[in-house]
Amino acid sequence: MEDAIYNKPHRRYNILTGEWILVSPHRTKRPWQGKTEDKVEVKTVTYDPSCYLCPGNERASGDKNPNYEHVYTFTNDFAALLPDVEAEEVNEGLFKAATEEGICKVVCFSPDHSLTLPLMKEEDITRVVQKWKEEYIELGGKDGINNVQIFENKGAIMGCSNPHPHGQIWAQRSIPEEIIKKTENQKVYWEQHNKSLLQAYIEQEKEVNERILVENEYFVALVPYWAVWPYEAMIVPKRHIQSIDQLQEEEEKAFASIIKKLTIKFDNLFETSFPYSAGIHQKPTDGKEHPEWHFHMSFYPPLLRSSTVKKFMVGYEMFANPQRDITAEQAANTLNALSEVHYLKR
Amino acid sequence: MEDAIYNKPHRRYNILTGEWILVSPHRTKRPWQGKTEDKVEVKTVTYDPSCYLCPGNERASGDKNPNYEHVYTFTNDFAALLPDVEAEEVNEGLFKAATEEGICKVVCFSPDHSLTLPLMKEEDITRVVQKWKEEYIELGGKDGINNVQIFENKGAIMGCSNPHPHGQIWAQRSIPEEIIKKTENQKVYWEQHNKSLLQAYIEQEKEVNERILVENEYFVALVPYWAVWPYEAMIVPKRHIQSIDQLQEEEEKAFASIIKKLTIKFDNLFETSFPYSAGIHQKPTDGKEHPEWHFHMSFYPPLLRSSTVKKFMVGYEMFANPQRDITAEQAANTLNALSEVHYLKR
Ligand SMILES: O=P(O)(O)O[C@H]1O[C@H](CO)[C@@H](O)[C@H](O)[C@H]1O
Ligand SMILES: O=P(O)(O)O[C@H]1O[C@H](CO)[C@@H](O)[C@H](O)[C@H]1O
Repeated sequence: MEDAIYNKPHRRYNILTGEWILVSPHRTKRPWQGKTEDKVEVKTVTYDPSCYLCPGNERASGDKNPNYEHVYTFTNDFAALLPDVEAEEVNEGLFKAATEEGICKVVCFSPDHSLTLPLMKEEDITRVVQKWKEEYIELGGKDGINNVQIFENKGAIMGCSNPHPHGQIWAQRSIPEEIIKKTENQKVYWEQHNKSLLQAYIEQEKEVNERILVENEYFVALVPYWAVWPYEAMIVPKRHIQSIDQLQEEEEKAFASIIKKLTIKFDNLFETSFPYSAGIHQKPTDGKEHPEWHFHMSFYPPLLRSSTVKKFMVGYEMFANPQRDITAEQAANTLNALSEVHYLKR
Repeated sequence: MEDAIYNKPHRRYNILTGEWILVSPHRTKRPWQGKTEDKVEVKTVTYDPSCYLCPGNERASGDKNPNYEHVYTFTNDFAALLPDVEAEEVNEGLFKAATEEGICKVVCFSPDHSLTLPLMKEEDITRVVQKWKEEYIELGGKDGINNVQIFENKGAIMGCSNPHPHGQIWAQRSIPEEIIKKTENQKVYWEQHNKSLLQAYIEQEKEVNERILVENEYFVALVPYWAVWPYEAMIVPKRHIQSIDQLQEEEEKAFASIIKKLTIKFDNLFETSFPYSAGIHQKPTDGKEHPEWHFHMSFYPPLLRSSTVKKFMVGYEMFANPQRDITAEQAANTLNALSEVHYLKR
């Protein structure tokens, strides 16, 4: 009966955001005559003299990167958020605005220009995890920083302007919309059940075992029931922890390991360096306890049919509702059939 | 003092959705080494034998388009929504889903393959408006259709798979997320002021006259205070009407005229066929009165710096909050400096 529903046009509920998404499983047969993307070329140069993220090179600001050996972070030279902005407000009838302050950082994952997370050694990904943790603690501990958003835009198709392996952190005074929604929904569940929403969710997912991609002692990676992007995935710690600063050493390694396994599957899907935006959602750093929060990392990859045909979130999706063509179960099946060895290393 | 705020990083409140957006005016100076899009070639062929939307041609379904002379609508051959789907639900713990039903239609704006709205005659755009009205009434009048979303994806960059001038209509049982948010916020205002939110808003905009782009007897086109997309614009009727079925003959013409003027400005901005998703938001067809609703048409165009460099809504925008680089006022100034004559017709 469930399967019957999933073969028909249907809507699914996102327990974290409280929003519905539209699923049109029958629509995959649609031919595609629209835009195709350039194929991603595999990078082979380990050092690019013109790359402003490579060790030793000069950046736009005139600063020179050190000869860093592992992870390296610095304040974004073109930061969207700035510190020490004097508080001012506009409150004139229907015009409402307020100054915002914050800090934007760049996190170089590796000195090696040619790498990406799936191609990095597990121990080097662990160093990235540790750096995220450090930054979350440091930035989140600052006065007036109430949220720390860690994310990565991977691939030109995701607006990434430099192929050097790197992510970003935007830390700010206000709590962003997505975090507000997720806080609310987790809070309602927490107050009713005294259990984290995602804890209950991963238990249910493990029982049916239809959307799980990778699992280890501490983490599970799955295609969420309410996935919007074609091959959207989510990594959730099994232990109910609010934020990455609570990760123990073993958990840091397990987190790095599952990131590697998941992103290898992604690369193997279309035998390409799989583009995505990834982000860690965790407890705001507003000084409150937030027992409801259960941290997780999500991947939103746009590719749908091949390495050059993506899903466009436009028109209906912008004006009405997110919509997807393949079901979460189909996506999970496809990903599960893939090797855990990277296609470039076979 | 207002100007001072608008030169600093700040947040603005969207009165229709109730959400905040982040504005980073100082960030425009950022150099762009990322992805560029192909330049849009101007179409010159008025009939393309391989186009499934041109008059007389066969479509994927095997159906043949009539030799239509003006506007022509038909049911999408690859509809995301289907009629007569038996109602079924999943309600198992944290898995929640329900079948959805609806109708997806394609609206060919003109038989002439080479045209786009800004290049069409005003009287032919009026015919499009009349067809939208007809479809809103017909689809919205059907049992189990509670919302009618009219939209256009223009340009390959917006996922449009066919350059023939056309839009779409997705009509469905459930009320989409965007409509729910806008209904709620308009309702609160309506109940408090017994006046439509957008009526009050356009009055305030006219007073300050900083973001208005085009105006005629019945409509105003402006860059909304809370615009997210670089050159986002909104067309609002001056009369408080809930939906397009209430348009009088003179208003239909005025709507067509302002659509033409606005889209000409768009094309003139980078001297290209300006891509966008446009959509009409109006009263749900759920049988309720919805006195709070004030219909409007929005344009979300992605281009930012030139005809080949767009704004990417990725990473931070997906995980946290919409963000823009230029202010709404800068965008309005730039658009206002442009000619009202299409660059191809000078
Ligand atoms: O229906 P089309 O034009 O083939 O498809 C386009 O518009 C739809 C509605 O906005 C989207 O769901 C698709 O992702 C997009 O490519
Ligand atoms: O900071 P970058 O990589 O230059 O820029 C990219 O990521 C940012 C944060 O997601 C976005 O605001 C930009 O639109 C995108 O191009």
